[in-house]
Amino acid sequence: VPLFIRYESLARVMEWLDGQAIDLPVETVPLAEAAGRVLAEDARALAEYPPFDHARADGYAVRGLDTAGASGYGPVPLVLRDEAVAGATDSRLLEAGTAVRVDAGARLPEGADAVIPLAFADEVAGVVELSEAVAPGENVALRGEDFREGEILLTAGRRLSARDLALLAAAGFGAVGVRRRPRVRILILGAGLAASGGERGPGEVFEASAAMLSALASRDGGLPEAPRRVPRASADLVEALRERGADLVLAAGGSGEGADDLAAAAVAEAGRLAFHGIALEPARSAGVGRVDETLVFILPGDPAACFCGYEALAAPVLRRWSGDGAETSGREARGVLVRKIVSSLGAVDFCPLRRVPGGFKPVPPGLAGLAAADGFLLVPEDSEGYPAGSEVAMVLFEP
Amino acid sequence: VPLFIRYESLARVMEWLDGQAIDLPVETVPLAEAAGRVLAEDARALAEYPPFDHARADGYAVRGLDTAGASGYGPVPLVLRDEAVAGATDSRLLEAGTAVRVDAGARLPEGADAVIPLAFADEVAGVVELSEAVAPGENVALRGEDFREGEILLTAGRRLSARDLALLAAAGFGAVGVRRRPRVRILILGAGLAASGGERGPGEVFEASAAMLSALASRDGGLPEAPRRVPRASADLVEALRERGADLVLAAGGSGEGADDLAAAAVAEAGRLAFHGIALEPARSAGVGRVDETLVFILPGDPAACFCGYEALAAPVLRRWSGDGAETSGREARGVLVRKIVSSLGAVDFCPLRRVPGGFKPVPPGLAGLAAADGFLLVPEDSEGYPAGSEVAMVLFEP
Repeated sequence: VPLFIRYESLARVMEWLDGQAIDLPVETVPLAEAAGRVLAEDARALAEYPPFDHARADGYAVRGLDTAGASGYGPVPLVLRDEAVAGATDSRLLEAGTAVRVDAGARLPEGADAVIPLAFADEVAGVVELSEAVAPGENVALRGEDFREGEILLTAGRRLSARDLALLAAAGFGAVGVRRRPRVRILILGAGLAASGGERGPGEVFEASAAMLSALASRDGGLPEAPRRVPRASADLVEALRERGADLVLAAGGSGEGADDLAAAAVAEAGRLAFHGIALEPARSAGVGRVDETLVFILPGDPAACFCGYEALAAPVLRRWSGDGAETSGREARGVLVRKIVSSLGAVDFCPLRRVPGGFKPVPPGLAGLAAADGFLLVPEDSEGYPAGSEVAMVLFEP
Repeated sequence: VPLFIRYESLARVMEWLDGQAIDLPVETVPLAEAAGRVLAEDARALAEYPPFDHARADGYAVRGLDTAGASGYGPVPLVLRDEAVAGATDSRLLEAGTAVRVDAGARLPEGADAVIPLAFADEVAGVVELSEAVAPGENVALRGEDFREGEILLTAGRRLSARDLALLAAAGFGAVGVRRRPRVRILILGAGLAASGGERGPGEVFEASAAMLSALASRDGGLPEAPRRVPRASADLVEALRERGADLVLAAGGSGEGADDLAAAAVAEAGRLAFHGIALEPARSAGVGRVDETLVFILPGDPAACFCGYEALAAPVLRRWSGDGAETSGREARGVLVRKIVSSLGAVDFCPLRRVPGGFKPVPPGLAGLAAADGFLLVPEDSEGYPAGSEVAMVLFEP
């Protein structure tokens, strides 16, 4: 295993990652499963909406002009017509001087252009007495007033909200084409790991990265496989890297320069190791490479360092692919440091921050500190940190 | 079907909803499935972390004081001991003047208190020559320095992040007790609805609320059942309301005063109808009630009005139960209206807004406008609206 001669700059690694294209084919999913997915193509209405003029209120369909002058003191009588005038299969004409009972949402008969709500109408022996006038168009929704057939409703790249699903359903979509979610394979390397919740031998630690990486991949729009432990043998790792079905591999552990550190060599054997050893503290042993169509991230085995490597290297890539657009858009919070940050020169420092009264505060290193943090700041290589009182932008962990 | 004599104020309805307690029992889920769930009880570390002093870097475990004065010009030689001194099952003593090869994460032998990284050590014939000195504690993680056994790591009510999962795993948790997600039943009432994506007869509209309500319930931490269409007969609705297994029912459609509007009567028959008819525009026909342990929301059939009813009435309740704490915390954006809002007196107006350059703009009514909106504003009953330039707080639709 070669020693790290020099650490590649994070900027150079991100530049390489930006150049890695991944083809995510379109898949068609039922609307019921489409929330949060990213629309693959512009959605044009398959049908207009509303599909016909209809009542917005329960009441009586009328010709608005017939109601002129109606009031509580001078009710206007209209001849009540049979309900069959309105309804699903019929569009018979509503003649002048007549009214027909309609429920909200029901189709208006031809000729009707307004609805008198129930509260302003009394039925008496085949006549409806109106105690209020309505103008044409009142309490009525017109055919196509929301959108027309063929109109572009939503554009490609949009993450579908609950409201979008209603819009698409009303426009006739039962299913919709969305980008495939990037499939994420999680490989846990390294010896001395006990399954959390089980027994732990002397010299063993509980494995703590698998559930975390899976949750992070889901958070960023990926579709994680169940994490796998990879035995020590390099051949097993090479095989897991070459196996089809993943767009992205997160390999945690075995990233260093030690005797058991097989990750980089296995990536080089299976495909291409682009960089190993990155000037990113505390994830210096991270690396990136490519095996066929799959982009591989080598991450440190220490869970806190693994998190740093994921957030700094993999999260922006996964979010871009999963269609989030900008990597940090809407995920930044500006604030003032209430304590100084000290950073060493020569490497980007991943600095977790916590919101506190008055601003942001760096947290102590380790998992407990990380859990208490709300986001992070990357301190550039050529910066020795920031004094208390500096205004900084924190990238939030949770969207 | 009785006519709405008066509309209950939204404030009074929310007050009633606030008083409705629901018991959500604790359920235990594996860590791998716990992301986003809400911790039911304080989590105390089952084990300390790290579980032993270990190396933070690949290199040689040493006694720091033995390395004093080492430099590239004056390397310090230490006797190389067998690797079995370190490692999983052994904790033999590292004697003064000796060193042992360790990988990052490996347990330190007794007596060792620092690690020299590989880059500053050369092995020559049983001797390690160190070209840099390390102080005691350098490149070493001490047992329990992150957290101690029994320490409270996370408190009840916390929504578990990916980082939290790493913390819990390291502390020995294989599974964790979380609050059950509120189970949400979605009932679609009303005639004249065609399944979207299928054929639509004359006078029919595509059903557009089911997928939307399901996505909204998921967004707010609920666990939605597959939406069901309920036939016109009131008895079927009463049965669906009484069926066990839901904490909350969303019944869309059949909410008005028309002949087919069975929702309110069915709730009254199955349990208790608390309010029907709410001074909330455009969801005046909404209502709330209770059937045994289940809270029932009657929502309008029109999808845009249904959305309004859900957001104004059900979303705050569901978010509170699902453990989000404050209903709108972190979901508000302040900004300036670039156009005036006109609102009628006597009802709260649900006003969807869109972010535009310079501030917020009301969107046109309907599904297309709603999809384009980013959040909403509730204009109070006694307000006629706001002039352009007013600063307002918008509740964001997406967290």
